[in-house]
Amino acid sequence: MGDYEPGPGALLDGAFPEALSRISPVSALAAEEGRSRQDTLTKPPGALGLLETVGIQLCAISGQCPPPLPLPAAVAVFAGDHGVLAEGVSPWPSEVTAQMVANFVSGGAAINVLARQVGAEVVVVDVGVAADPPTQGGYVDAKVRRGTGNIAVEAAMTLPEARRCLDVGAGLAADLVRAGFRCLATGDMGIGNTTPSAALIAAFCDREAREVTGRGTGIDDSMLANKVSVVERALGRALGRGPGGGAEYASGGAPGPAKTIGGDRAGSRPTDGGWGLDDQIGLLASLGGLEIAALAGFVVGGASLGVPVVVDGVIALAAAVAAAAMAPDCKGYLIAGHRSSEPGASVALDHLGLDPLLDLSFRLGEGTGACLALPVVQAAARVLAEMATFDSAGVAKKAP
Amino acid sequence: MGDYEPGPGALLDGAFPEALSRISPVSALAAEEGRSRQDTLTKPPGALGLLETVGIQLCAISGQCPPPLPLPAAVAVFAGDHGVLAEGVSPWPSEVTAQMVANFVSGGAAINVLARQVGAEVVVVDVGVAADPPTQGGYVDAKVRRGTGNIAVEAAMTLPEARRCLDVGAGLAADLVRAGFRCLATGDMGIGNTTPSAALIAAFCDREAREVTGRGTGIDDSMLANKVSVVERALGRALGRGPGGGAEYASGGAPGPAKTIGGDRAGSRPTDGGWGLDDQIGLLASLGGLEIAALAGFVVGGASLGVPVVVDGVIALAAAVAAAAMAPDCKGYLIAGHRSSEPGASVALDHLGLDPLLDLSFRLGEGTGACLALPVVQAAARVLAEMATFDSAGVAKKAP
Repeated sequence: MGDYEPGPGALLDGAFPEALSRISPVSALAAEEGRSRQDTLTKPPGALGLLETVGIQLCAISGQCPPPLPLPAAVAVFAGDHGVLAEGVSPWPSEVTAQMVANFVSGGAAINVLARQVGAEVVVVDVGVAADPPTQGGYVDAKVRRGTGNIAVEAAMTLPEARRCLDVGAGLAADLVRAGFRCLATGDMGIGNTTPSAALIAAFCDREAREVTGRGTGIDDSMLANKVSVVERALGRALGRGPGGGAEYASGGAPGPAKTIGGDRAGSRPTDGGWGLDDQIGLLASLGGLEIAALAGFVVGGASLGVPVVVDGVIALAAAVAAAAMAPDCKGYLIAGHRSSEPGASVALDHLGLDPLLDLSFRLGEGTGACLALPVVQAAARVLAEMATFDSAGVAKKAP
Repeated sequence: MGDYEPGPGALLDGAFPEALSRISPVSALAAEEGRSRQDTLTKPPGALGLLETVGIQLCAISGQCPPPLPLPAAVAVFAGDHGVLAEGVSPWPSEVTAQMVANFVSGGAAINVLARQVGAEVVVVDVGVAADPPTQGGYVDAKVRRGTGNIAVEAAMTLPEARRCLDVGAGLAADLVRAGFRCLATGDMGIGNTTPSAALIAAFCDREAREVTGRGTGIDDSMLANKVSVVERALGRALGRGPGGGAEYASGGAPGPAKTIGGDRAGSRPTDGGWGLDDQIGLLASLGGLEIAALAGFVVGGASLGVPVVVDGVIALAAAVAAAAMAPDCKGYLIAGHRSSEPGASVALDHLGLDPLLDLSFRLGEGTGACLALPVVQAAARVLAEMATFDSAGVAKKAP
């Protein structure tokens, strides 16, 4: 853990609506400037591959060419527990979430090690851990509730709880930018959280449970079959998919309307833009995780302040598809750090139009894949800022 | 450029034979220790993917678990020109090699920028540039000759020249380790050098020209067809492949014997281990580049001193297959930094049993792919050294 502590007034209510109102599209003009500049640098055009693509995106994000270095970077690890664990979707016990939060605070987890390697700050946020937090502090206490409901049979959280999570995420992003961070990376901890992620990706990208549900940190065929059916039940409950289901977005404090949804099949998202922001938040409340909702707010918050947001694996991507549904302009600020092997991740990446920088076969989460991509993102900015041009270096160009 | 300068006595004759005599297999025992340790760390087994594989390899290389951090790192960029450019295999003029050496020395090239990002030292070595070197210094002058012969019609260099290049590479590796570097990365600059690389990979991996010849930094279909035929002619000349060809390994100062080679087809490498070291060096002299031969020496030199050698793209891989032919034990010390899109690179990676860490669609060389992989290699060592164990962190394990 580094020195960052949330400033006074951070994480207050209203950060998410404010971020939504601030967000604007990335600059096509600066992107074009970046594209032109790449071809003047002392290398064959396009020879730096994805590094050139990311450099151009950093121009678009910052509105400048060359872009400012996206430094320093912070990875926010949002932690929460999941009622759906009762359905046997993970071989890990729920208490590991809290134990890993303590591990993050002590600096012994993978994300701490990788963050030290790349010079990033780790910020741990308890947004929904079921157990009591570690007493030694060193994390942000923003607990909204102790774990979600079991999404197979009930909403994950109420609408007000979802809004609170979105505020926590957006508020933290704003406070990190205020504190000087110029690149945000997403992290997560929550035993069982690939299940709500699959459900959210299915719902927001209009896919079937079996298309988006994977093995998480490691389950066998029969557990996977059970996990698919749990996601199906959750989708049936929330969206009215399947026989006789009625659409319901959220239960508890503020249930969403049981509306009939248009589209080619029962439970499809309307293609006519018929869903409003409340419906999107309702879906997040019904199927989500507390840490996933906070991540969605974090993504929108970072994008609204014009900094790149490097997303990790399938959990972050579930948050990102929700964020993109609520604020389509945030897509331009997203950089995919690592290709997750979860099938839902590929669906979400396609949906968002993202091409991950790394593929190291990670299946851990915590922000590890986003974190290890940070040097690549930083290198992309440096290339535009520091490389010599053919003219300045007196290097001959290739024959036309 | 950093502060490294070769020490007195570096780059003297005999470094390569000394490296050959010193090299020993990596430690299977330490690898096993690393493998066991990975499973005690606070993550699901295997969840850090390639990072775990590399960590285990670093144990094997160093003979220790956890391994020492492979820091600091140096990337050696060997530069040379190629007579085969007369055959129209590249759209870039030969003088770009010298111009890029000047660019490296000034710090304006892609490799300089990426090395600054990852904290690596760039060492530029003129081993065969056709033009005069930049007058401002800042590079290692180890010129063996001014460019190679045209491999389509003659040997690239003589046997003594090839031996001198091997000595330069092995001597530089030894001097870098003496100076305190604990990880070496390969870089190259030489307009036209994907052509000899394809020829070497075809010869050492027993493939056809069309299987290993690619577009380099960018050529069209007709230039590619010509390049394939140039590689075919070179292989025919050197190995007696094709109609009526007679095997010849090297011409000039020390021609190799015109021996009849066994195997399934004319020009195949003998599978009975019938080739000796002189034959391998002869092949390198006949088909190689001066910078490629130096890289082969560098790979063997680094391996002989027990440090990891991170290889870049197809040029380094051509050197690595030659190095592995001369010293099979060096394979265990190699880490592939980046997947090159050149078809010969995939052939060489398979031949060497390597799985690249990055795939960012680079097609530049200079060591850029190896350089950007260095944080990943360093992170792999840190994971083993710094992560908490389930026991030390008090984290529960998954259900059996």
